[in-house]
Amino acid sequence: MTNLRASTPPYYAVIFSSQLRPVDGDDYAKTAEHMEALAKTMPGYLGIESARGEGGFGITISYWESEEAIANWKKQVEHRKAQQRGRNDWYENYDVHVAKVERAYSMKKAR
Amino acid sequence: MTNLRASTPPYYAVIFSSQLRPVDGDDYAKTAEHMEALAKTMPGYLGIESARGEGGFGITISYWESEEAIANWKKQVEHRKAQQRGRNDWYENYDVHVAKVERAYSMKKAR
Repeated sequence: MTNLRASTPPYYAVIFSSQLRPVDGDDYAKTAEHMEALAKTMPGYLGIESARGEGGFGITISYWESEEAIANWKKQVEHRKAQQRGRNDWYENYDVHVAKVERAYSMKKAR
Repeated sequence: MTNLRASTPPYYAVIFSSQLRPVDGDDYAKTAEHMEALAKTMPGYLGIESARGEGGFGITISYWESEEAIANWKKQVEHRKAQQRGRNDWYENYDVHVAKVERAYSMKKAR
């Protein structure tokens, strides 16, 4: 989550929901890991969170300071190549929602 | 996803990201399933999607027509009880982001 809990809305979320095709090799996992590391270096990055279940359906949400930061990340050269491989090779389908976070709260269990 | 792909932004997303505690019994799973079925009966409901990985970290996103629909769902009696059990028994921590979806697009592989 990185800087996210220290951030105050409004900021932006890119919700990426995807169904993976059955994948052979660890090409996908390596690229996903690299993209996450790369996103963290981009201006306006606030945080990322990701979950994928056994059936291959997953959700990744990246959080950004502004629409401009999102546009900048979307056109980053390595990320563009990964997006193309995603469409061609890895995903059965996906949905993207770009949303403006208006409020946020959290719970953390006392120990 | 239900009606979601037929909907045009703006609409709202409630992003619920949670770390489960190690859970014994299927109490949690049953309640989660029931809450999803219940959400679908609420006014202004547009869709839901959910993924949880092996480590117990998961993301559930519900989509709604309006802030009013979200407030109405949040205070639904059975849902309130489930929220309380979540805080007390099931979750190590969670984050909630309420966001206004400004645009959406999707890809579906031709066969």
